[in-house]
Amino acid sequence: MTTPADTSTSRARTVLPLRPELADEVPYGAPQLDVPVLLNVNENPYPPSDAVVATIAREVAAAAAGLNRYPDRDFPALRADLADYLAVESGVRVAPEQVWAANGSNEVMLHVLQAFGGPGRTALSFAPTYSMYPEYARDTHTRWVTGRRAEDFTLDVDHAVATIAEVRPSVILLASPNNPTGTALPRAVVEAVLDAAAAIPAVVVVDEAYAEFRRAGTPSALELLADHPHLAVTRTMSKAFAAAGLRLGYLAASTELVDALRVVRLPYHLSAVTQAAARAALAHRTELLAQVDALRAERDALVDWLRAQHHAGRPLQVAETDANFVLFGTFADRHAVWQGLLDRGVLIRETGPDGWLRVSVGTPAETAAFKDALTDVMREQES
Amino acid sequence: MTTPADTSTSRARTVLPLRPELADEVPYGAPQLDVPVLLNVNENPYPPSDAVVATIAREVAAAAAGLNRYPDRDFPALRADLADYLAVESGVRVAPEQVWAANGSNEVMLHVLQAFGGPGRTALSFAPTYSMYPEYARDTHTRWVTGRRAEDFTLDVDHAVATIAEVRPSVILLASPNNPTGTALPRAVVEAVLDAAAAIPAVVVVDEAYAEFRRAGTPSALELLADHPHLAVTRTMSKAFAAAGLRLGYLAASTELVDALRVVRLPYHLSAVTQAAARAALAHRTELLAQVDALRAERDALVDWLRAQHHAGRPLQVAETDANFVLFGTFADRHAVWQGLLDRGVLIRETGPDGWLRVSVGTPAETAAFKDALTDVMREQES
Repeated sequence: MTTPADTSTSRARTVLPLRPELADEVPYGAPQLDVPVLLNVNENPYPPSDAVVATIAREVAAAAAGLNRYPDRDFPALRADLADYLAVESGVRVAPEQVWAANGSNEVMLHVLQAFGGPGRTALSFAPTYSMYPEYARDTHTRWVTGRRAEDFTLDVDHAVATIAEVRPSVILLASPNNPTGTALPRAVVEAVLDAAAAIPAVVVVDEAYAEFRRAGTPSALELLADHPHLAVTRTMSKAFAAAGLRLGYLAASTELVDALRVVRLPYHLSAVTQAAARAALAHRTELLAQVDALRAERDALVDWLRAQHHAGRPLQVAETDANFVLFGTFADRHAVWQGLLDRGVLIRETGPDGWLRVSVGTPAETAAFKDALTDVMREQES
Repeated sequence: MTTPADTSTSRARTVLPLRPELADEVPYGAPQLDVPVLLNVNENPYPPSDAVVATIAREVAAAAAGLNRYPDRDFPALRADLADYLAVESGVRVAPEQVWAANGSNEVMLHVLQAFGGPGRTALSFAPTYSMYPEYARDTHTRWVTGRRAEDFTLDVDHAVATIAEVRPSVILLASPNNPTGTALPRAVVEAVLDAAAAIPAVVVVDEAYAEFRRAGTPSALELLADHPHLAVTRTMSKAFAAAGLRLGYLAASTELVDALRVVRLPYHLSAVTQAAARAALAHRTELLAQVDALRAERDALVDWLRAQHHAGRPLQVAETDANFVLFGTFADRHAVWQGLLDRGVLIRETGPDGWLRVSVGTPAETAAFKDALTDVMREQES
């Protein structure tokens, strides 16, 4: 903080007491550009059908008729619907009281760090991982520490356990499938982390934003909830559910963990409109999730195609992925490749370890446009 | 934090690292009870008309057609609409870039305290005032200090300026009209606080959640924006706008202040559905605000009626109010009065200084029910 030299004129009073750690920060977010092919933020490329839109409009209209009243602070109906959905999706049945929701899973994560992180405490993850995590830590004044993932982006159990014992975090964030690599965690790894966390004690958040896209045989950490009261599994309606514009993230955990989040949430954080629209979308879950199988097949074919490409004399590297995106590389100048694709109307994401790029799985037409553009860019770079 | 005595069984792992200051806290919020007459949370008693509901449904349907995509992070169209509304309401024209919005003005306030408060910093207000403020401070690890309001709930300039110089806060919160007292601040008081704040420097938030209900001649702090870059004036669509269920709070401030909030906001914090519904409601502003004059008249009549009542041998005290609620008292046992009203189907709020109660201004029928119930309760207490 500085004191203005002269407080006698209004212009001299422009000094704002911004927290010093924010002084050089810019608002987080991928560029929102108007480009024909958007494969940069892992959205579902299929918009809701007319039937889904009609249900949302009808339910929002019903809620709007009482819009002068505050929404239900505890949204039990939405929590019950989310619990029902999880039971169908994963086979794991949780009680509505074990479900929590907020305006995006980033607000859910904020609640977790407000309750269990904060000044004097540490959040631990393993890099490379989701680039928002350190922002959540910063926003809650939680120390941020990362261990490392292996060369192939998997998580070594011994390293994870040793890091937990050394760092003694109060919150551990594990994305599975991991963003931006696509890597899912085997059950044994999550169990080992849970055991190590229990001894601290620490809350373990398994971020399953992309879980619906996991390949057959890949488990969900929901299966571990019953035995682990310090586990929270976060999900979102933004990805498989094709509702990124709705901003509805949620988690399943023990009732005692959820009750701690209820203390730090702002009252009435979920609007009546959001509650109604989310419930309307959940009522169409079968239809909204119908594209997930197609997107998985599209992803696996894209991985195969990328692995068959060569750049600078060797095959492209492609990370194993259980998500709706693919991390590929490496490029000596990844920014040039990203820009070359953008120049051809295809927006992907310049993220992850040096030299890698991430592309979301789109429609077959979008994938074709991406393949054409990438082929073109790589040819140009080598000529 | 404690370490479980035995980590060999899952039940021994139930210890969660909840922050110690949250251990005895309960979720904030007035009781949500199913009662015929709801006069407890200062809602607008008039629901939106069919025309408003239809516009909201239509605009939400249009947004839902693209729900698979993330919303615009910076919501320029909504900010422009809010700026237009403020110009009409107050005569003060601000640029869209000077407007910020979030899911309720409590999230707006969280952003302010994340950017300008936090560990090692202090937020200052003057009690009695809004009971959520200390929770915002707690949630952002900001030290919370209160000066005092005078006996009649006004703010003494000398006391305010001296307290600011002594406490050296980085954020000052002034509610005007104040909740739960209804007291609006004269322009000279706000100017004196702004001058004292500039020397620290501190951000001054004038919380005008109830500003539309102010009496003729009461100013809005919006008039002071042009000369005070460290001033933020918060508003909400929850009260006069009859849209508490929408959760749309906003503020007007200098562009540099707003830009600081953009750094700490979670990306995509305002859903496409919320943006669409808020814009739809704003398009009907004339109609939605038509009840404000009626509510003001209803309030003034209620104040007159309360002042004519006697309890325990003396007239009831009633605070001057520029809001859509009235603080009245005092009662030796206010809880008994509150419970007596609830037993008669009228829910008001047990809040404010000892002995006082707060009642929201409802429809004429609701006011009549409140008057009958209060008369009955007071008679019963005195018999």
